[in-house]
Amino acid sequence: MVELYHDERFDYLLGEDLRIIQSPSVFAFSLDAVLLAKFAYMPIQKGNIVDLCTGNGVIPLLLSKRTKGSIIGIEIQERIYSMAKRSVEYNKLEKQIKIIHGDIKDAPSQLGYSKYDVVTCNPPYFPTPSADEINKNEHLAIARHEIYCTLEDVIRISSQLLKQGGKAAFVHRPGRLLDIVTLMRQYRLEPKRLRFVYPKLGKEANTILIEGIKDGNPDLKVLPPLIVYNENNEYTEETKRILYGE
Amino acid sequence: MVELYHDERFDYLLGEDLRIIQSPSVFAFSLDAVLLAKFAYMPIQKGNIVDLCTGNGVIPLLLSKRTKGSIIGIEIQERIYSMAKRSVEYNKLEKQIKIIHGDIKDAPSQLGYSKYDVVTCNPPYFPTPSADEINKNEHLAIARHEIYCTLEDVIRISSQLLKQGGKAAFVHRPGRLLDIVTLMRQYRLEPKRLRFVYPKLGKEANTILIEGIKDGNPDLKVLPPLIVYNENNEYTEETKRILYGE
Repeated sequence: MVELYHDERFDYLLGEDLRIIQSPSVFAFSLDAVLLAKFAYMPIQKGNIVDLCTGNGVIPLLLSKRTKGSIIGIEIQERIYSMAKRSVEYNKLEKQIKIIHGDIKDAPSQLGYSKYDVVTCNPPYFPTPSADEINKNEHLAIARHEIYCTLEDVIRISSQLLKQGGKAAFVHRPGRLLDIVTLMRQYRLEPKRLRFVYPKLGKEANTILIEGIKDGNPDLKVLPPLIVYNENNEYTEETKRILYGE
Repeated sequence: MVELYHDERFDYLLGEDLRIIQSPSVFAFSLDAVLLAKFAYMPIQKGNIVDLCTGNGVIPLLLSKRTKGSIIGIEIQERIYSMAKRSVEYNKLEKQIKIIHGDIKDAPSQLGYSKYDVVTCNPPYFPTPSADEINKNEHLAIARHEIYCTLEDVIRISSQLLKQGGKAAFVHRPGRLLDIVTLMRQYRLEPKRLRFVYPKLGKEANTILIEGIKDGNPDLKVLPPLIVYNENNEYTEETKRILYGE
């Protein structure tokens, strides 16, 4: 048995394949994390994977359905780390997924440089606001704003963790696309696959998925558009497959 | 009357609004040029506009339907320049459109620095191949390969021609996206609007449309996807509107 604290609840992931602890006041995963977990390249049989800023562990949990490799998730907030750890235990995935409580900036020195095959990250999207603008809920503020880690931290650390030829996959907002590709090239992660997520046909993209290869050759592909809702405001078939499994 | 040479023919543009001289062996415009002419910001009442690498003048001709401003088209190949000039005459647009035979690299010194409101360009897409790989048809090779102007030339010259706040719009292939945005920032053209063209839903993008503002603030929008064909391989409604007019 796994204990639930305060307003925590068990939600389903991928239909009924997995359960995950969520809390409206502390952390709940977004569609973006699910999209990233589907978008990222995964070695099927073996490999070493790190998910930075793992939150309640939604990405490691989802990745465990796509790979037999070892997955590490790193989360800086102890309260949220605890949610991730308990979710892994509930799903009996402790042998495959290790959740670490710590700062991603310590990851290369603690986990090793140039040892990993894949790094994923759904980072905080927003610059750090002024003290009076910041979300009064500290848990949510840290998950959403670049308080403990900036986009540059995420990209630099991803590159440090990856082997040559290893792959880093990120999800972010289109407004940061140019910063992301500039930083990726600066830290030797050559962008190779880029996918835009449009809430509906006829709407601007609100999310980007991007994957780079450490020391890869320049050759960017822009993948087919992912349209989230159809004209009746229902999930499209592709979104349903990503959310609920094949 | 306007003379036609060799295998030239008159084609229609925008339904029957305009006529344009084309030649299969010398130059025929592509859908990309039409998309760019629709995508680019245009001042309605007045303004000074330059189209670099204008080919048979398709972009100036199309822009004349969207603005009362003055339009200059520059083409380096005399044979193709002549087609553009005769098309402008045939459509009786000589007062609005001036076609210049010359090298775009001479444009800022001849036309003036920082004087223009909008620059458009559908440049050659491909790097210069080796002598034995190159298209044996010199006219087509020059239009398609970076023989007389590179992407960097196009972006540098666009910036030199534009006023502060002026807009440059380009069409290119997704594989060059990172080069384009890097060069645009290097030459003070901040990317603001980016649109991906997908041949069909479910297919990778094969064209990008991008607009930057000289000395603009960073704030990139990724516009709704443009899907060219529907599932029956017919033009979508939006493509039809762009090709044949509203």
